[in-house]
Amino acid sequence: MYESLAVVGATGAVGKIIRQLLEERDFPIQKVTFMASARSAGSTLSFRGEEHAIVETRPAAFEEIDLVIASTPDEVSQEFVPWAVERNAVVVDESGYWRMDPKVPLIVPEVNPGAVENHQGIIASPNCSTIQMVVAMKPLHDLGRIRRVVVSTYQATSGAGVAGQRDLEHGTRALLDGKPYQYEAFAHPIAQNLIPQIGSSKHEDYTSEEMKMVWETHKIFSDDTIQICPTCVRVPVTNCHSESILVETETPVSVDEARRAFDAAPGITLLDDLKAGQYPMPCDCDGCDDVFLGRLRRDLSSENGLTFWCVSDNLRKGAATNAVQIAELLIRSAR
Amino acid sequence: MYESLAVVGATGAVGKIIRQLLEERDFPIQKVTFMASARSAGSTLSFRGEEHAIVETRPAAFEEIDLVIASTPDEVSQEFVPWAVERNAVVVDESGYWRMDPKVPLIVPEVNPGAVENHQGIIASPNCSTIQMVVAMKPLHDLGRIRRVVVSTYQATSGAGVAGQRDLEHGTRALLDGKPYQYEAFAHPIAQNLIPQIGSSKHEDYTSEEMKMVWETHKIFSDDTIQICPTCVRVPVTNCHSESILVETETPVSVDEARRAFDAAPGITLLDDLKAGQYPMPCDCDGCDDVFLGRLRRDLSSENGLTFWCVSDNLRKGAATNAVQIAELLIRSAR
Repeated sequence: MYESLAVVGATGAVGKIIRQLLEERDFPIQKVTFMASARSAGSTLSFRGEEHAIVETRPAAFEEIDLVIASTPDEVSQEFVPWAVERNAVVVDESGYWRMDPKVPLIVPEVNPGAVENHQGIIASPNCSTIQMVVAMKPLHDLGRIRRVVVSTYQATSGAGVAGQRDLEHGTRALLDGKPYQYEAFAHPIAQNLIPQIGSSKHEDYTSEEMKMVWETHKIFSDDTIQICPTCVRVPVTNCHSESILVETETPVSVDEARRAFDAAPGITLLDDLKAGQYPMPCDCDGCDDVFLGRLRRDLSSENGLTFWCVSDNLRKGAATNAVQIAELLIRSAR
Repeated sequence: MYESLAVVGATGAVGKIIRQLLEERDFPIQKVTFMASARSAGSTLSFRGEEHAIVETRPAAFEEIDLVIASTPDEVSQEFVPWAVERNAVVVDESGYWRMDPKVPLIVPEVNPGAVENHQGIIASPNCSTIQMVVAMKPLHDLGRIRRVVVSTYQATSGAGVAGQRDLEHGTRALLDGKPYQYEAFAHPIAQNLIPQIGSSKHEDYTSEEMKMVWETHKIFSDDTIQICPTCVRVPVTNCHSESILVETETPVSVDEARRAFDAAPGITLLDDLKAGQYPMPCDCDGCDDVFLGRLRRDLSSENGLTFWCVSDNLRKGAATNAVQIAELLIRSAR
C-alpha cells in the first residue's frame, strides 16, 4: 500500500510536468511531498489548489515516504536513492544512473509492465529517445519479431534541460540580429544548425545517447539479439523528439497489418495521410502524452522491412509521463 | 569548341552562385551572356568587373550560344532547353525536368564523369540530396560494391528557394515574438519544427524527393540493384543539407579502409574526431564546394555495414558547383 508520495526534483522542467500529471490523472495518493535542492527548500509550489512547502532532499526527508517519483541529474540520483530505499520507499527514477543495474527493472508500461513485479526498491524509466522508439516497436515486435532497427533522431533542445531551451531561444535571436551569443548547454551553435553528437563518445565511436538506445532497448525487450544502429542528432526545435525508424522483422509484417496494430496499440496515435499532408510534427505533439507515428511505408531496401516517422514530447512520454505511469502500475500491483 | 556561354536563371539563388563560381574558377570561356525571365531583362549584373545586361530567355537569344548552364524551375526548363538544343548549344541543366530521360546523361563528376561523352545536347545535374549522397557512396562502392543504403535527410530551407529561406527567417522571428506568420514556401510551420515531407506523394507513400534519391542514384551508378530506403525531412536550417547514411557492401569494408578512401577521394573532406567534438555541421559547410563527412563508424546492426554523417552546401555542390563542374568536363572533353 502506498500512502505518501514524494516528487524529487520537483522544481525542474520534468518535475513541473510530473506535478501537472499528478493533478490531470487524479493520481491515487493523498499525501504528496515536493523535494528539491537546499536552494529551493522553503519556497512553495501550488498543487491541487494548495500551496506546498518545498522540502530539501536529505536522508531524514524520506522517513514517512512510501513512493518516490524522481527526475534529477544522475549524480543526485546516485546519492539520494539509497536514502529512500533504506527507509523502505520504492523509487521510480527518471535519471540515467540506475537504468542498466541488473537489479533494477527498466520499464515502459506499454512494453514490459510485468517487470514491475521484480523490483528491489528501485525502478528506472528509460531515456527519452529510447522510450518513444520502443513504444513504436512493440506492436511490430509482437507481430513479426523485430531483428534489426536503423534509427536517426532529430532531438529537441529541451532534452538538454532548461539551459538547452534558453540556448535555442537566445542563440536564435542573436543569430537573426547578427549578434554574438555564448552557448551554455551546447558545445556548438544550435540556432539554425545541427549537432550530430548527443552525450560523450562511448563505444566504437557511438555516443552515450546512441548506446542508451541500444542497451536500454535490449533490456526492455529482454532480448540483446535485436541489432540496432542509432544516430542521434540535436536539431533547433524547442521540444518533442522525432525519429526516422526502419525495422526489419523475422516474419513479414505488411503495411496494413502494421497500421492496424499501431491503431490498436495503447499510447500510440497514428497520423498518417501523406497525400493530405498529415504526419506528426513537433509543433503539434508538444504537451501530448502519446507517441505519434506517421509516414508508415514498406522499406524499399529489404524484404521484411517497414519504415516510419515517430514524434513524442520528450518531457512528457519521454520522461514525466512514463515515470508517473510506472508509479501507477506499482500502486495497482500493490492492491 | 565552346566559345559562348549562357547562364539561364542568372538572377536566382543558384544562378548567383553560378556567376561567382565562373569567376572563382576562372571558367575557360570569354563570352558570357546572362539570361532570365522578361521581368529581369534590361537590368544588369556585375561579372568579371563589368556590368552585363540581362537578356530575356527566348528562342532567338540562343542563336550565338554554344554552351548553357541553367538553373530554373522544371517548367521553364521544359520550354527553353529545346530552343537552345535546336540551335546546337549543349545545355547543362540543373532542374528536375530532364534527369530521368534515357537520352540525357545524369552526371556527378566525382562519380560518373565518363557519361559526358554520350550526350545528345542535354546533360542533367541531379537533385541536391542525391549529389552529396552519391559522392559519399562512390569510394565505398569502389571498395566493396554497395548493395543497400538507408538514408534520413535533414534538409535546409534554401532547398525551397529564396521563399524557403525567407519563411525560416520571418517565421522564426514571428514565433519568438509570439506573432502570427503566413508561410509561403511550406505547407506547415518550419520555425522550430520539422516537416517529414519534401515534394509530393510519388510512389508507395514515398515522396518525390525520396524517389529522386532512389531513381537518380540508380541512373548515376548505372545499377538499379542498389536497394535504397530514403526518408526526407525539412529542418529549420537556412542552408546546407545533412544526411545520416548507412550503407551495406557486398564485400566487407573496414572503418579504416573507408577512412582512407574518403581521405583520398576528390570532392570529399573528412572531419571526423568525435572525442574532439569534430564533425561536419551546416554552420561550418555553408559556402563550401566539398561534401563533408564525419561520424564514420561500423554499423552495429549488420555484418558489412558502415554508417556516417554527410553535410554539403545544397546551393553549391548540390546545384551550382555540380553544374559548373559538368560544364568544365564538357569543355575538357571537346579539346
